[in-house]
Amino acid sequence: MSQTERVGVSLDKKLLSMFDELIAGQGYSNRSEAIRDLIRDRLSEQRLAKPATRAVAGVFLVYDHHSTELSAKLIDLQHSHLLQVIASTHVHLDHHNCLEVIILKGKVGEIEKVANNMACLKGVKLSRVNIMTTGEHLT
Amino acid sequence: MSQTERVGVSLDKKLLSMFDELIAGQGYSNRSEAIRDLIRDRLSEQRLAKPATRAVAGVFLVYDHHSTELSAKLIDLQHSHLLQVIASTHVHLDHHNCLEVIILKGKVGEIEKVANNMACLKGVKLSRVNIMTTGEHLT
Amino acid sequence: MSQTERVGVSLDKKLLSMFDELIAGQGYSNRSEAIRDLIRDRLSEQRLAKPATRAVAGVFLVYDHHSTELSAKLIDLQHSHLLQVIASTHVHLDHHNCLEVIILKGKVGEIEKVANNMACLKGVKLSRVNIMTTGEHLT
Amino acid sequence: MSQTERVGVSLDKKLLSMFDELIAGQGYSNRSEAIRDLIRDRLSEQRLAKPATRAVAGVFLVYDHHSTELSAKLIDLQHSHLLQVIASTHVHLDHHNCLEVIILKGKVGEIEKVANNMACLKGVKLSRVNIMTTGEHLT
Repeated sequence: MSQTERVGVSLDKKLLSMFDELIAGQGYSNRSEAIRDLIRDRLSEQRLAKPATRAVAGVFLVYDHHSTELSAKLIDLQHSHLLQVIASTHVHLDHHNCLEVIILKGKVGEIEKVANNMACLKGVKLSRVNIMTTGEHLT
Repeated sequence: MSQTERVGVSLDKKLLSMFDELIAGQGYSNRSEAIRDLIRDRLSEQRLAKPATRAVAGVFLVYDHHSTELSAKLIDLQHSHLLQVIASTHVHLDHHNCLEVIILKGKVGEIEKVANNMACLKGVKLSRVNIMTTGEHLT
Repeated sequence: MSQTERVGVSLDKKLLSMFDELIAGQGYSNRSEAIRDLIRDRLSEQRLAKPATRAVAGVFLVYDHHSTELSAKLIDLQHSHLLQVIASTHVHLDHHNCLEVIILKGKVGEIEKVANNMACLKGVKLSRVNIMTTGEHLT
Repeated sequence: MSQTERVGVSLDKKLLSMFDELIAGQGYSNRSEAIRDLIRDRLSEQRLAKPATRAVAGVFLVYDHHSTELSAKLIDLQHSHLLQVIASTHVHLDHHNCLEVIILKGKVGEIEKVANNMACLKGVKLSRVNIMTTGEHLT
């Protein structure tokens, strides 16, 4: 599908053996793949620093599902941002707590706004946003 | 359900007004809630530094779904870690790329291992892990 | 010098006792001070997201001082950015490695550029940039 | 001094050209050097996750130097941790605020403790710790 090129990299032997050990421990079967992942990661990071970059994100919310009001507000928020919300998954953690993972797509800046709105809702105990580029620029 | 206590916090007026402005922008309706969130966040962070802490996590993988081998391997990996994998959501990003969000539950150290194994698979372009405490210790 | 205000915060008793334990462990003598630090931290974070914010930074470089060329280039770089470079401290780590901490002042965006230029020099093994707001907005 | 090895890495052409553009923008003159930096970075990160790893750190404190008590306490703290404190640099930021950068050497776990003690002092407005491996394992 796409063309590959082989480039040579000079590495100190000791550095190379430490890197090989690290990536074997992580489960890589292949040094090229590990280096490609480092490169893609760096490229993705750089893009995410710009608010207009298109991205996907997961908003993680841990909350007490006994606060029924919250569930309703969360659904409201999701529907008022239909363009961004793709899917959401609900997981029961224990008798009180649940985790909701809401997947959003949109510009970095917009996603952060929606995520902030959700994190602020009363009843939400913990929240995290995980943002990634969509991969469309990566091969 | 649980008892609350009211504590007094001395704040410089200027600091307070900047904080109020910040949290209003984020969408908080209530200063106490914003401060509780800061506190819960810090507590959660501290717990996650210990590998034995029980946690939930989302593993985000962006990959080209034309690499059919990968999908099979991902499913294999999920089934060989049944204890940890709770759910997974698959999203089509564009003609080539998809996002898979895999929700895991377990000890921080174990989750990182499973997540690493997934991230290393050939075909995975980008990966991120988002780890949170389960909230069972937070009220 | 500046006026303080006392605000009340409602906290679940269990959350409060966990927070008290955490901050005692860190060495805080005073709950208000710990909460003020959380607030200042959040405010600072938000400001640093804007490239035009005035900030101070430390650029940390670990390098092999036997690469004499590098030292010369580093000094050149520092002098060509006189506006930003305030001071630098040099520490001998072992027979080969030294640490140079270069303190810069300027806009977030400019600082990142200078720091990048330094990190890229051949001979630099590790680099980190630590950016903070100047505190002029914090009380 | 040390032996180098040349390894081949297969990269998609588009990925390679994006990477080349990125590192040129950062100021790298050489692709190998950029890849070595990615590798060293990853190795360093992994080591820092273990509390017993030997490291160097910079503790950054922004504080109002009119709180004279603080300066005295800071010096006390530095002297009671003589093993760890290597140097400190003091910078005047404006009429009220100063930045103190304290360079520590020691095990990751110990450094974090000392840094925490400093950050908690009344009068410290902002604090950050920047931890790096010493480079002794990196070539």
